[in-house]
Amino acid sequence: MAADPRFFPCAGPHSLATIAAAAGGRAEGDGGLLLTGVASLQAAGPGDVSFIDHRRNLPLLQATKASAVVLSEDLLAELPAGAAGIVVRSAYLGFTRVARLFHPAPAAVAGVHPTAVVADDAEIGEGCEIGPYAVIGSAARLGAGCVVGPHVVVGPGVELGPACRLHPHASVSHAVLGAGVVLHPGARVGQEGFGLVVGPDGQFETMPQLGKVVIGDAVEIGANSCIDRGSQTDTVIGPGTRIDNLVQIGHNAQVGRGCVIIAMAGISGSTVLGDHVTVAAQVGIAGHLKVGNKARIGAQAGVMADVPEGIDVVGSPALPIRQFFRQQSVLRKLTQAAGQNKTGEKT
Amino acid sequence: MAADPRFFPCAGPHSLATIAAAAGGRAEGDGGLLLTGVASLQAAGPGDVSFIDHRRNLPLLQATKASAVVLSEDLLAELPAGAAGIVVRSAYLGFTRVARLFHPAPAAVAGVHPTAVVADDAEIGEGCEIGPYAVIGSAARLGAGCVVGPHVVVGPGVELGPACRLHPHASVSHAVLGAGVVLHPGARVGQEGFGLVVGPDGQFETMPQLGKVVIGDAVEIGANSCIDRGSQTDTVIGPGTRIDNLVQIGHNAQVGRGCVIIAMAGISGSTVLGDHVTVAAQVGIAGHLKVGNKARIGAQAGVMADVPEGIDVVGSPALPIRQFFRQQSVLRKLTQAAGQNKTGEKT
Amino acid sequence: MAADPRFFPCAGPHSLATIAAAAGGRAEGDGGLLLTGVASLQAAGPGDVSFIDHRRNLPLLQATKASAVVLSEDLLAELPAGAAGIVVRSAYLGFTRVARLFHPAPAAVAGVHPTAVVADDAEIGEGCEIGPYAVIGSAARLGAGCVVGPHVVVGPGVELGPACRLHPHASVSHAVLGAGVVLHPGARVGQEGFGLVVGPDGQFETMPQLGKVVIGDAVEIGANSCIDRGSQTDTVIGPGTRIDNLVQIGHNAQVGRGCVIIAMAGISGSTVLGDHVTVAAQVGIAGHLKVGNKARIGAQAGVMADVPEGIDVVGSPALPIRQFFRQQSVLRKLTQAAGQNKTGEKT
Repeated sequence: MAADPRFFPCAGPHSLATIAAAAGGRAEGDGGLLLTGVASLQAAGPGDVSFIDHRRNLPLLQATKASAVVLSEDLLAELPAGAAGIVVRSAYLGFTRVARLFHPAPAAVAGVHPTAVVADDAEIGEGCEIGPYAVIGSAARLGAGCVVGPHVVVGPGVELGPACRLHPHASVSHAVLGAGVVLHPGARVGQEGFGLVVGPDGQFETMPQLGKVVIGDAVEIGANSCIDRGSQTDTVIGPGTRIDNLVQIGHNAQVGRGCVIIAMAGISGSTVLGDHVTVAAQVGIAGHLKVGNKARIGAQAGVMADVPEGIDVVGSPALPIRQFFRQQSVLRKLTQAAGQNKTGEKT
Repeated sequence: MAADPRFFPCAGPHSLATIAAAAGGRAEGDGGLLLTGVASLQAAGPGDVSFIDHRRNLPLLQATKASAVVLSEDLLAELPAGAAGIVVRSAYLGFTRVARLFHPAPAAVAGVHPTAVVADDAEIGEGCEIGPYAVIGSAARLGAGCVVGPHVVVGPGVELGPACRLHPHASVSHAVLGAGVVLHPGARVGQEGFGLVVGPDGQFETMPQLGKVVIGDAVEIGANSCIDRGSQTDTVIGPGTRIDNLVQIGHNAQVGRGCVIIAMAGISGSTVLGDHVTVAAQVGIAGHLKVGNKARIGAQAGVMADVPEGIDVVGSPALPIRQFFRQQSVLRKLTQAAGQNKTGEKT
Repeated sequence: MAADPRFFPCAGPHSLATIAAAAGGRAEGDGGLLLTGVASLQAAGPGDVSFIDHRRNLPLLQATKASAVVLSEDLLAELPAGAAGIVVRSAYLGFTRVARLFHPAPAAVAGVHPTAVVADDAEIGEGCEIGPYAVIGSAARLGAGCVVGPHVVVGPGVELGPACRLHPHASVSHAVLGAGVVLHPGARVGQEGFGLVVGPDGQFETMPQLGKVVIGDAVEIGANSCIDRGSQTDTVIGPGTRIDNLVQIGHNAQVGRGCVIIAMAGISGSTVLGDHVTVAAQVGIAGHLKVGNKARIGAQAGVMADVPEGIDVVGSPALPIRQFFRQQSVLRKLTQAAGQNKTGEKT
């Protein structure tokens, strides 16, 4: 059974030849064969296209009822009789494209819902879809084909490039977004950062946060994630970067291009990430640090010092990965030794 | 002083006999005594019902002004003169039921607010309460007696069983909910999961997320928590499970029945939790793992491997609890020894 | 270049004398010199005021194009020719006040947006600004000059003191707020806490949460942060406390005055913090604990026991800071020794 039609309207059917072309591969089977949807190997039925991307799933491939399977050359011989093949270099990527063929991202339905509140001086580009109860502020500018969901708030002066997609309940202020930026539900962009100043008598004052947020093309910000605007400089997210849910980016932070920031990670103020950095789940990176290009920060790490280019770190405080595992090994041996000393038996 | 009447309208008064019956216990005192509200031992005044569930609170019991106290048999002798008793097996559970008697959950006030946007083909069950600025999408189906708060967004095709309660600012899409499901304010259910695919040139593409979220009866999802829909399978939360605030559940994860997931915990994609698993605050569980029935994961743990049924783990990486404490003990002794070596005195 | 005028309208120009007075310092230069905005040393142009608060930034000072610089006496000699000085005790604090002079917090624009839903029996103080699609519940009371942003939900009976500022998408119920309280976007105050009770057959029931949230004057709650109401007592946040984004405060917790709680920290139910406590990012504090005045909890710490007044702790489980660093040092030495033993070379 393919994707639930209540939620995922299916474009198609498509021929095997069309599908193979979309996948960037070649068809093994009748190019005119019609396929109707996509599914996992185990859920697939006749008419579905599936995929296999690892030998460990061969039993699933042998049992599948899918009519066609995306796979790499080396697994072609394993294809069951009765299933056509779509041979590609990377099965997962190929299947991604086939799934997109059957389930294209819903196009913007141009129009402004009568309940949307759009400032008179806001500029709404051609073909934008503005949903119920969206609020678009004074002098905001939306590029062509943006989709602004129910209850979204776009603050005064905010710029969205073309084809941005703001999901329900997202809010954005004090920001300039590139093309194709996605804000998932409840994402918060541009609010005041943590600008606490302690006065001479211990009283708290607030440094005005006079920077903005600059978000590059094709960036995605996850549900309920927060990106604070800068104080005297901008908070910057580089093109192509993907940010998962419940992430915090502090004021003045700079994230390079093509970074991946997984759920619940936090990047403190004024820290700079290079390009293609991977930050795993629940990481904390302290402020005013530099993380070099292609560095990878392991889950739950606590980064308290700069991370050089290409280095992998994990642990709290974070250490280069080999050092961390050596430390764990030492701890484990000492603990085992202590257990043996206590009882005379290995525990 | 009992609950603030601005916020907690009080049903009552109720007789001691009625209250004892609701609590599942017996009255010690005049069954016709009228009580007017509930409060803690220290806050209670005449007319209030309180409870004691631990001997350490005996001083509070002796000083209380409550007119009746829920307590277990073994503490009955400690009841002050002038206070009636409600004798039960578990005082905390008994008091829960008494509190509910005085403060029943507000019933749905049937009706659709004139500002709610409800799609023509949505089906709204009998007795539903739809609040200001709620948005109910095309072909959504709400069971009887649902309460949908202000600004809630129910996406196209979403199904809610009877008596669901969606608090202000919650959003749900691509999902099927059972009966009596509660989404607390800002909860996000059904959005696209983190479907990043890296192409051959390092470019990012997105795997369409074609699964949904399936939520069982009586599940509660906390404020600002996020549950992503699945990619080719569904993300599933089993009946009765309780999820606290600011929790992340990744795509394709499966959580069994009667689990408890405390604030700020994160469960990565495709991980499977059995039934009655307890996940404490700020835990991180890596992806594609299995956590067995009744396992308990301690606060801030980092689970990187399967956890067998009934096992307790803590630490990052997570270890069985005895091993973790032995490790801590070893570390502590080594640190003390190092301190002594340095100074000649115990530090 | 000063703050982006699309987002930060600039009051001014102001004379050097006026600025020096606002900063609480003295002018070094022509008191009649007109300045037009504020910027960092590196971004400043003619007409801008900047600041330097550390010697390491002297190169930036020497290169700056700012027309005036806020600085302390000891750096006055370093001021470039052509730049006026504003001499203060603390440059950062002085600049805060200058920035506020040029960019005052936007005043409330009194009025109720026609789309706001305001209960007939709600009391709206003089000069309040109620934005599009805000919902103000029955018997709510707002003090003078409150700003309630788009889509904010203020629940029945809620009290706001004067000059509160509720940013878009914040929600507050079952709460009493003092003067000048700020809720950043998506903040959630007053929802039901985690009141799970396990019955005799293992079934889950819910203890009614009959407390409220009490928030003192000048408290700020960050974006998407959650503060649960109490069960039989109130959850309390003391005056002046600042709470960052994505923070969780559990039911019945009490936070003293002037505390600082950084992003993603979690304080479990019934824990009590004294005054002027600092809780760093991603800290977890277990329930029913006491943290004394002026204690400081380091980032990612896991606090499992009371913390005495004035003590600094870090680590998980949290330890006094000296003990933690000694432990780290011991681990590091053991790991190095193990590395040497393995390879004969220092790793």
